[in-house]
Amino acid sequence: MISKNEIKHVRSLHRKKGRKLAGQFIVEGVKGVEEAMASGWQVERVYALEGVEVQSAATYRPIEVSQKDMQQMTALSSPSPAMAILRIPEEKSFDPSVHMDERLLILDDISDPGNLGTILRTADWFGIRKVILSENCVDVFNPKAVQSTMGSLFRVETYRQDLAVCIGQLKEHNPSLHVIATVMDADPIADLDQAVPGALIIGSEAHGIRPEIISLATEKRSIPGISGAESLNASMAAGILMYAWTR
Amino acid sequence: MISKNEIKHVRSLHRKKGRKLAGQFIVEGVKGVEEAMASGWQVERVYALEGVEVQSAATYRPIEVSQKDMQQMTALSSPSPAMAILRIPEEKSFDPSVHMDERLLILDDISDPGNLGTILRTADWFGIRKVILSENCVDVFNPKAVQSTMGSLFRVETYRQDLAVCIGQLKEHNPSLHVIATVMDADPIADLDQAVPGALIIGSEAHGIRPEIISLATEKRSIPGISGAESLNASMAAGILMYAWTR
Repeated sequence: MISKNEIKHVRSLHRKKGRKLAGQFIVEGVKGVEEAMASGWQVERVYALEGVEVQSAATYRPIEVSQKDMQQMTALSSPSPAMAILRIPEEKSFDPSVHMDERLLILDDISDPGNLGTILRTADWFGIRKVILSENCVDVFNPKAVQSTMGSLFRVETYRQDLAVCIGQLKEHNPSLHVIATVMDADPIADLDQAVPGALIIGSEAHGIRPEIISLATEKRSIPGISGAESLNASMAAGILMYAWTR
Repeated sequence: MISKNEIKHVRSLHRKKGRKLAGQFIVEGVKGVEEAMASGWQVERVYALEGVEVQSAATYRPIEVSQKDMQQMTALSSPSPAMAILRIPEEKSFDPSVHMDERLLILDDISDPGNLGTILRTADWFGIRKVILSENCVDVFNPKAVQSTMGSLFRVETYRQDLAVCIGQLKEHNPSLHVIATVMDADPIADLDQAVPGALIIGSEAHGIRPEIISLATEKRSIPGISGAESLNASMAAGILMYAWTR
């Protein structure tokens, strides 16, 4: 049994303002909660429906809640069997010197939380460990973004940066850095330079990469399409690029 | 101004049962509605908010509705500025003889409508024109699936089939057909056989391809991952495979 105030507090974390105020965010789903508890991140609360097992090395015992309470707390379209409240970690400062074997992903104003989460999950799959987000990118602690990462949020480091400044610093520290911008009507990605270190820039769903950011790239590439569809979904394009970049 | 009954009717199309009963489905968004009107499919109704322009060669004039009515009719999380009601076309019978230059996509029990729609959009991008759906695949006329296709629904032909029977017929008619199953821990897709005609099978989000369907494949392949993430999103995996298959 939890109080109305507690439910209200969890609901406040659906919105960016509430998350900022409380310094907390929501993880939903049994797998996500289990990964959260194993991640080393600070877990402040775990809720689970009656009878739901949450496997964890921690001695933390979930608070049992009713279906109805979970329904009120969830940020998703259908309530999850388990939910955790985590502390938002302190932002690490970004070090513009990159290791010689490193690949960076740079996201310019991705606005859909599901796309952002899917991109982080896919980056994790392809071994890309650092993702730089433009200042207007959607919040990575948005519940739908967290859900779409399927636990990869705990493994991929994200940095929120002014992209023009950040790319400038990266190039200054790493004069041989390949900076690849993905645009329409450029050379195909099949022969994408896989040299490391490298940085791959993905643009927003509606507008692509901003012109002032494209101008900082050392290379421009496109995913060749044959026909009908005007465009690919932003996370799909990002995933295909990451595949071509890392294989 | 539209009647309560009409709103109720549109809402009935959110569910598969209602769509089957009425033989209709919903397309939302200005771009989707414009593509619907240009598609040659039978458009039975178009609704638009006041002041919203729907470009179309047709002389059909949209019915103006209030924000509140649209809110009640939408199947999406936020109401669209325009909506069309279309007749579900008659199912074409599937011809198991394939043209020599053809690629087929086969989907085994994809359950998320957003994934299905995104897969159709991506197939369209890569010039794949025929998609075979297993009997338990989510409905392609589900409003979220339609939305995610971004108009590709009107360009990609879908056929609902018993996959075991269908693949058997395909192989009988086309003895040299490559049937590729995507599984965990097989050879990487980098050197995927791009020979045509070919068929690529994608499995469900939770269970992959059913074993009895895998056994009908002539080739098995995996997307090599480096690390952390346990899996890729189903539509992401499908998109990367289609890229590797068609490039």
